[in-house]
Amino acid sequence: MNNEVYTKEQLYSMGPQRTFNNDAREAAFLLGGIGTGNISVGARGELRDWEIFNSPGKGNYLPYTFFAIRAEKEGEKPVAKVLESEIQPPYSKSHGFLSGEMAGLPRLRSSRMRGEYPFVWVDFEDSTLPVDVSMEAFTPFIPLNSNDSGIPGAIIRYKVKNTSDKPVKVSVIGSLANAVGHRGFALFGNLQANPQSLNEYRDEDGVRGLYYYTDLEESSLEYGSMCLMTRDSSVTYKTYWLSGGWCDGIHDLWDDFCDDGLLEKESVYEGVKSEMGESNLKVGSMGMYETLEPDQERVFEFIISWFLPNRIKAWDTDSCCCAAGGCETVKNYYATLFDDAWHAGRYLLENLDRLEGKSRDFHRALFGSTLPDYVIDAIASNITVCRSTTCFRIEDGTFLGWEGTFDQRGCCEGSCTHVWNYAQTLAFLFPDLEQSMRKVEFNLETDENGKMSFRTRRVFGKEPWDFLPATDGQMGTIIRLYREWKISGDDELIKTVWEKASKALDFAFEYWDSDGDFVLDSQQHNTYDIEFYGPNSLTNSMFFAALKAGAEIADYLGDEQHAAKYREALEKGSKRMDELLWGGEYYIQMIDDVNKYRYQYGKGCLSDQILGQLLAHVAGLGYILPEEHVRRAVKSIFDYNFRTSFRDHHNVQRTYVLNDEKGLLLCSWPKGGRPKLPFVYADEVWTGIEYHVAAHLIYEGFVDEGLTIVRAVRERHDGYRRNPWNEVECGHHYARSMASWALLTALSGFKYDMVEGTMSFKPAINSDDFKTFWSTGKGWGIYTQKKDPETGEIVWDIEVLYGSLEGVSVNE
Amino acid sequence: MNNEVYTKEQLYSMGPQRTFNNDAREAAFLLGGIGTGNISVGARGELRDWEIFNSPGKGNYLPYTFFAIRAEKEGEKPVAKVLESEIQPPYSKSHGFLSGEMAGLPRLRSSRMRGEYPFVWVDFEDSTLPVDVSMEAFTPFIPLNSNDSGIPGAIIRYKVKNTSDKPVKVSVIGSLANAVGHRGFALFGNLQANPQSLNEYRDEDGVRGLYYYTDLEESSLEYGSMCLMTRDSSVTYKTYWLSGGWCDGIHDLWDDFCDDGLLEKESVYEGVKSEMGESNLKVGSMGMYETLEPDQERVFEFIISWFLPNRIKAWDTDSCCCAAGGCETVKNYYATLFDDAWHAGRYLLENLDRLEGKSRDFHRALFGSTLPDYVIDAIASNITVCRSTTCFRIEDGTFLGWEGTFDQRGCCEGSCTHVWNYAQTLAFLFPDLEQSMRKVEFNLETDENGKMSFRTRRVFGKEPWDFLPATDGQMGTIIRLYREWKISGDDELIKTVWEKASKALDFAFEYWDSDGDFVLDSQQHNTYDIEFYGPNSLTNSMFFAALKAGAEIADYLGDEQHAAKYREALEKGSKRMDELLWGGEYYIQMIDDVNKYRYQYGKGCLSDQILGQLLAHVAGLGYILPEEHVRRAVKSIFDYNFRTSFRDHHNVQRTYVLNDEKGLLLCSWPKGGRPKLPFVYADEVWTGIEYHVAAHLIYEGFVDEGLTIVRAVRERHDGYRRNPWNEVECGHHYARSMASWALLTALSGFKYDMVEGTMSFKPAINSDDFKTFWSTGKGWGIYTQKKDPETGEIVWDIEVLYGSLEGVSVNE
Repeated sequence: MNNEVYTKEQLYSMGPQRTFNNDAREAAFLLGGIGTGNISVGARGELRDWEIFNSPGKGNYLPYTFFAIRAEKEGEKPVAKVLESEIQPPYSKSHGFLSGEMAGLPRLRSSRMRGEYPFVWVDFEDSTLPVDVSMEAFTPFIPLNSNDSGIPGAIIRYKVKNTSDKPVKVSVIGSLANAVGHRGFALFGNLQANPQSLNEYRDEDGVRGLYYYTDLEESSLEYGSMCLMTRDSSVTYKTYWLSGGWCDGIHDLWDDFCDDGLLEKESVYEGVKSEMGESNLKVGSMGMYETLEPDQERVFEFIISWFLPNRIKAWDTDSCCCAAGGCETVKNYYATLFDDAWHAGRYLLENLDRLEGKSRDFHRALFGSTLPDYVIDAIASNITVCRSTTCFRIEDGTFLGWEGTFDQRGCCEGSCTHVWNYAQTLAFLFPDLEQSMRKVEFNLETDENGKMSFRTRRVFGKEPWDFLPATDGQMGTIIRLYREWKISGDDELIKTVWEKASKALDFAFEYWDSDGDFVLDSQQHNTYDIEFYGPNSLTNSMFFAALKAGAEIADYLGDEQHAAKYREALEKGSKRMDELLWGGEYYIQMIDDVNKYRYQYGKGCLSDQILGQLLAHVAGLGYILPEEHVRRAVKSIFDYNFRTSFRDHHNVQRTYVLNDEKGLLLCSWPKGGRPKLPFVYADEVWTGIEYHVAAHLIYEGFVDEGLTIVRAVRERHDGYRRNPWNEVECGHHYARSMASWALLTALSGFKYDMVEGTMSFKPAINSDDFKTFWSTGKGWGIYTQKKDPETGEIVWDIEVLYGSLEGVSVNE
Repeated sequence: MNNEVYTKEQLYSMGPQRTFNNDAREAAFLLGGIGTGNISVGARGELRDWEIFNSPGKGNYLPYTFFAIRAEKEGEKPVAKVLESEIQPPYSKSHGFLSGEMAGLPRLRSSRMRGEYPFVWVDFEDSTLPVDVSMEAFTPFIPLNSNDSGIPGAIIRYKVKNTSDKPVKVSVIGSLANAVGHRGFALFGNLQANPQSLNEYRDEDGVRGLYYYTDLEESSLEYGSMCLMTRDSSVTYKTYWLSGGWCDGIHDLWDDFCDDGLLEKESVYEGVKSEMGESNLKVGSMGMYETLEPDQERVFEFIISWFLPNRIKAWDTDSCCCAAGGCETVKNYYATLFDDAWHAGRYLLENLDRLEGKSRDFHRALFGSTLPDYVIDAIASNITVCRSTTCFRIEDGTFLGWEGTFDQRGCCEGSCTHVWNYAQTLAFLFPDLEQSMRKVEFNLETDENGKMSFRTRRVFGKEPWDFLPATDGQMGTIIRLYREWKISGDDELIKTVWEKASKALDFAFEYWDSDGDFVLDSQQHNTYDIEFYGPNSLTNSMFFAALKAGAEIADYLGDEQHAAKYREALEKGSKRMDELLWGGEYYIQMIDDVNKYRYQYGKGCLSDQILGQLLAHVAGLGYILPEEHVRRAVKSIFDYNFRTSFRDHHNVQRTYVLNDEKGLLLCSWPKGGRPKLPFVYADEVWTGIEYHVAAHLIYEGFVDEGLTIVRAVRERHDGYRRNPWNEVECGHHYARSMASWALLTALSGFKYDMVEGTMSFKPAINSDDFKTFWSTGKGWGIYTQKKDPETGEIVWDIEVLYGSLEGVSVNE
């Protein structure tokens, strides 16, 4: 490495995961399943960002929704606090903190949060309490089991330990606003509660809690239910807070709780009301209590579940049919699994041992690996994308994705092929969901001429997206088809889509190769939202990888004509492109006058220049360009595009990295020739591209360089600058960031072919004492290899934690 | 004082004003005149919160609007930077920073901001520049001259000094987006520019600059103009940035600027466009340049002016008549003074010596006083309220105020009497504007029975606000009428309104005094948005001060009947209330069962308990309750309601003060008797109340206690937690915070009677070496008194900086 940005120790550290202080305001850890929406846990242990209402909702808060503890040490004054650490500045909102935020109630003094997806822990400190308190929360996450990873609910536990020398009477309660059917927030931040919402206390089959429902029609977009439940038996509850005006409900609840830690089932107060301030909001509380002896520890376990079954049958309200009485709706997939929130919650509680056990297996396999800690963080944290509101599932099970989200709505619809190209996570963890995307792309969105709409609308029965086809996106779907086939060993998949997939590949010959030399050169729309003109290695490397994938599939299916066509094109095209575009250190774009068209890159060093090669590596396709040039190119990308400071970088485009931060530019012009108006985004930094370049560097043996990029990305996501569980680009939880999973395949040298039934590992680091998570469509678990200190031989072992390895040979 | 919160040194410090580092993200200093809207300067020297479009707009940004410097030291590489210090975390927006924010351009390394209303300074530091740079900005502010304090524009200057040993070629440019007629922001944060907007470069009569206009109808709500101007002659400009798509305009502009510091008048680039990304936005730039010799200093002066003449003829769009083709409009008062933004800008530039000179006189008088620094800060910073979007003026000159504002709209309409009661600033600085409020209250909003609508709607020709009358609000208008009369010496005022004013006062006898004992006791709606029942000292102290004021006015006008009636009521009522409510340490509320009605306070110690007495002091009415009890009560308020930490305070209402902060509660129950549901707001802290209690403590001789409260308030507004120039309550720039002006009258012991022609000072601190600002309706200036070290005698002097003291005797 030329310039040592980090020490070896920093690059290869295997310490514990980072923790976040209570002032790390940006840190927000997502709870919730695939396609269910989310609640997040903030660094203070607070619940934030209620995104369960079939829409992104950063900043959404539920008034009066919180947990609280009351601890009464024998002979002393009881202490009651909201179970969050203290609110941190700024305190600058136009109306202070709203009553519903309860910022004026005592909180615990400080806290430290640690998130290891799918688990999050918050350790509180507070010297005024006679007990220690910590929080744990998660939603079950089990690779290969998309149903059990798609439960609309979360487990929230408070572990309380008596640290005093006397018995302590402890109560922990949760309060939850009934937000079923609500219509956003009115002036003054009041939740516009649905007057038809109702609360009920239930106790059945060892499960008890508050059930919130509504008497709206089941078909109503606003229909649904929510629950606060427990398996605990020492329960105290209040189904409805005192109704009245202003803050009557919380006033009464808090006084009641502080009084003895138990809740009156019903609140009555007859004082004459004032002339202002009524509210429809219904809130309930439920909690548990126990007297703890000195040193005794006790877990207070809650679950929150929700059921908002109906979403609009469209990407957004702009494109749904609102003329005749509102939008058409479609069910969420999870609504085909559960009848209501109580059902979902009961399922969670009744199956918790299994669900939690497998989730812990996954966590142990991934976080127990011998990869550098921040690499595990990069891999794990971006799993959240597929359980964020960027993604959802409709009733037939189809998995759909935005590119990312605005705070309050999705951003860039249609499972955009050229963005999702970069994502690897879903393919390795939930192959069935990733496959559903291929089926949409080929069988719904590819027309008879092979032109693929790169954003799906037909999935909702709408007119197709009417725009240019995307060269990189369309070629990527072929590579990904190959990957899905090899991960799953599922012939059915390729058989189902091959007719259209081959048309989509054939389309490139007709549409983008103007002179028949197997090098694409026409107007090529791509992921930079502009069109490249003339030969360039981004779209062509995608083309070549697609050709190789296509040839292999065609071979397998006995489609000899296509196989031969693709092989010839790959051979000739790859050679010709290398001749045309190799610039000595990296590939360039061939264009006579780089300023004739706006937004080209010409002689620039493009970070994406051989994306197709990286995708080929991950899919197991091998080299599609001369290995030597590939190695040199990827090294040049690092050398020229990685920056250790952005203070002297002039970027007038969007800005994702700034000041003293480090990152990898999308492009640079080390040898001059920068166009007057280079492609938009050229001066930006995208984590999705950083990860694939990092993985590629590792694949080519430049491990230090690859790790350097990853460390830089994670440093930028430190909880103060940005959320560690939310890498944004054109939206929150941006799909491209799921490129980080390629770090796992690269560092473990993981190869898989479930069609052939083979699997192998070749660690790029720590090969003498290596441990990693692995997964295919057949199973997942832990791979270990160690050097025998006596013989010097490498001894390996594989543990299957889910599924099976039947019929699969390893390292042979 | 019981508990010494601050040292004497802290309380009596007369150091320089605080400065704010570039990471003080909450600090935002308002530019703009009375009723013109604002632009704010942030702690990084950035322009933020564009609130010039007839609406509050916290967070409004104008894309591509910034200043920049290019400095080229002889023989070295030029350096070009945006004239702001570096952007500070968080960097967590859904789409990174938008192109229009230009977060990716180099900025100066650090900065320190200091604001002394109406002036703000930002000193930059950056070792890569061969020059020192600082910024100064202000909008002229001249007490007693509301027109010249109401110019829609601001002066922005950059002082550049060559700190190198070689000549440095310096260019400073400003860029401004044409936002005339814009319609907010679309997805992706793009300004929805009005396609009818046009840019023009003008050079006339020694003034030159960019004039932005539109060919919309003059009557259109969106009609208007904006300017970027200068008196400088070495001008370089680009009327229109390159149009195209994406970031073409800024790309071209920045490259052009970096190239040689001069701008091409026209940008031409013919490259084929892409298929996406067009924009209507028109941006222009203008700058100045000069080569500076070593040590040479040069000021680059810009002005920004605006003219958005038409506002809706209603408080907000909800209440305007939208049925027939949009809202009716009314002109802003400033639009009667100027024809367009160019006119306003030219007026500013052509009269700048006078306008700036008088503004500096005011600044010198206030900030040069011998009051503690943080007290001056409290007094000065809340002047901003009357130049914020909380206030505006309509065509006939009437001054109107919200209570405060939401981020994007006004909050609580109608110049609410019970909130504006507390404000003193406007009355002492712009008596004509304050008088216009009295005229509305009495002559428009008081009906024949004397019932006053405490929110004006009739001013827009609407139906009156249909609600209970507000006891405190209505009584307060009488006290304030007296104050306006004594400040101005204007008989015309009292003659114009007395008929209705006396009805408004008579109304209290009929409506609120159920048993005729001259102590109000019926359902009394008040500033806590609820109703008190039974005798209480808040509304009654207001009543008694109003009676005293009314009696004096009636006397003067020869209305003997009223004078006698009011005198009798005052004498008997005051005595009776004292008997009924004096609790030994403070006044309480008399109510049999405090829980019979919601939201009472009973035996609580109310911070507002003798608000009427404080208002009487400021207005010069003297005592209306037994002096001894008044002194004791105000001391009890401090003793019981001031908190040095809020960690153990349980407040379920709105929260303005929390954790380790200090502040004064609205109420406490030191002797028990807290109602089950005390009045809403009881557990809150409002700066407007803190200030009046602080002033009252000082009036009664408890100077340390008063100063303690003020220091606590200002500590909470430290630029990190809250904006020093924005004290919020139910909205930003809350009118009640203008109570802080009473600190000036209290500390200087200022008495005035322009009817009698007398004025006097009796400093509560530093009386041996005292200096203060003073103002009446006749003039303003500096009062000084010093102890002669030889004779021990106090020698005083008075300087008139505006208006005259003709016919006024001082200290006699």
